[in-house]
Amino acid sequence: MDAGIYNSVLVTGSNRGIGLELVRQLAESPIPPSQIFAGCRDPDGPRGKALKDLAQKHLNLITVVPLDTTDPASIKEASRVVGSKLGDGGLSLLINNAALNIPGNLQEAGMKEMVDVYITNVVGPMLVSKEFLPYMQRSSALPGSWAAKSGSKAAIINVSSLLSSIEMCRVTFSEACMYPYRTSKAALNMLTCCMAEELKTDGILVTALHPGWVKTEMGGPQAVLTPIESVSGMLRVISSLTSKDSGTLLNWEGNGIPW
Amino acid sequence: MDAGIYNSVLVTGSNRGIGLELVRQLAESPIPPSQIFAGCRDPDGPRGKALKDLAQKHLNLITVVPLDTTDPASIKEASRVVGSKLGDGGLSLLINNAALNIPGNLQEAGMKEMVDVYITNVVGPMLVSKEFLPYMQRSSALPGSWAAKSGSKAAIINVSSLLSSIEMCRVTFSEACMYPYRTSKAALNMLTCCMAEELKTDGILVTALHPGWVKTEMGGPQAVLTPIESVSGMLRVISSLTSKDSGTLLNWEGNGIPW
Repeated sequence: MDAGIYNSVLVTGSNRGIGLELVRQLAESPIPPSQIFAGCRDPDGPRGKALKDLAQKHLNLITVVPLDTTDPASIKEASRVVGSKLGDGGLSLLINNAALNIPGNLQEAGMKEMVDVYITNVVGPMLVSKEFLPYMQRSSALPGSWAAKSGSKAAIINVSSLLSSIEMCRVTFSEACMYPYRTSKAALNMLTCCMAEELKTDGILVTALHPGWVKTEMGGPQAVLTPIESVSGMLRVISSLTSKDSGTLLNWEGNGIPW
Repeated sequence: MDAGIYNSVLVTGSNRGIGLELVRQLAESPIPPSQIFAGCRDPDGPRGKALKDLAQKHLNLITVVPLDTTDPASIKEASRVVGSKLGDGGLSLLINNAALNIPGNLQEAGMKEMVDVYITNVVGPMLVSKEFLPYMQRSSALPGSWAAKSGSKAAIINVSSLLSSIEMCRVTFSEACMYPYRTSKAALNMLTCCMAEELKTDGILVTALHPGWVKTEMGGPQAVLTPIESVSGMLRVISSLTSKDSGTLLNWEGNGIPW
């Protein structure tokens, strides 16, 4: 893993699971980014403790940013905080990791479940990307940086899922019906492709990543990967992205998944 | 077109455009269905007049049903009305046609546009399908009927779009950004596949159909197909569906579109 090649990074939903591990591995890499912004809905609540402890260990590197990705006012305020820390600098990597799963088959899934999951998994990443876009457009490809290597200024990573694949639904459905989650993640893939097209001229890559089935609160204890394994794979994939990967869905090992 | 092979049909959003033409062609076919239920948000408003005039011409065939597909209470009431008209009979075809488009690029699309379009284009079809499912499960394959021919009891058609195709986004994006619409229709495709899997054992087909680019209020005057051409194609495709088409996206000519 070569995390230090990023100048500055924002990770949403970073108080636990994959988000927390992303912040940890980025911070503890031999050459860390210049700044890591760790977005978290309620950093001062009991569920923010692990993140705050981690930030305490890396005082000049990690900034914990209160960020509820479903609340436009909170996104705006987080952007103000990040902007003032960045100064003239840019944001080279945004990882839209915050996500929600409310399991449910056809009978169990209703209006509220569908809308709540869609807002967190699709509208949130869209609103965050829009709000932080000016910082990403300002990100410059410093010599030797990942951005210079990949030929782009910056990248947006949308954390998706194998369950987002419509093509694979026949294979995966019986194990995990999850209507609200699946429909939202398919929509997130479309958002990824739309943003990849729209931001091409800005030199910003947009890629969807499947982290694998990970032992987290969401993945459950029977999952096959540890957060450490998943995240080290994801960061390896991210650091090797080029423009041909923009608008695609890759897994944590860098293999493509069909839509 | 061989519309008469359906026993009974429900079309949502049938007061104009493709929905109205579906009801018209079904009603005016040589062998029409035994009953056509024409769902419409506000049949007594000015936008319901064309449908009411059509229903007046086919008094014993078309039942106009007030149906706001975004309102669970309205769906329940519509189901009660349809159930009492069906008696012991079943519903052999449900066409989820009601849809909304709020155009918008990344900067224009916000929370409200995203959620409103998702509710109409994805949650609505899901809620309607759930509510009318018992009638579809009751639908029997009468000798000579489409259901008997296709080897299934009934079919749910979700009216999707070429713009739902994530694979085709690179080609179609510049002409029609439409973030809320595209993300919702990709999610509708996933819903189609999930329902196709879940309802397989019930013998109910679920297929997404792209009607083409049609001269309607939504499609605009520069579109290439008339509603008559699009709908006659769609009904031809629907009448030839078999179980291998369940969980796929087809266009009005029966050709597959990649996810």
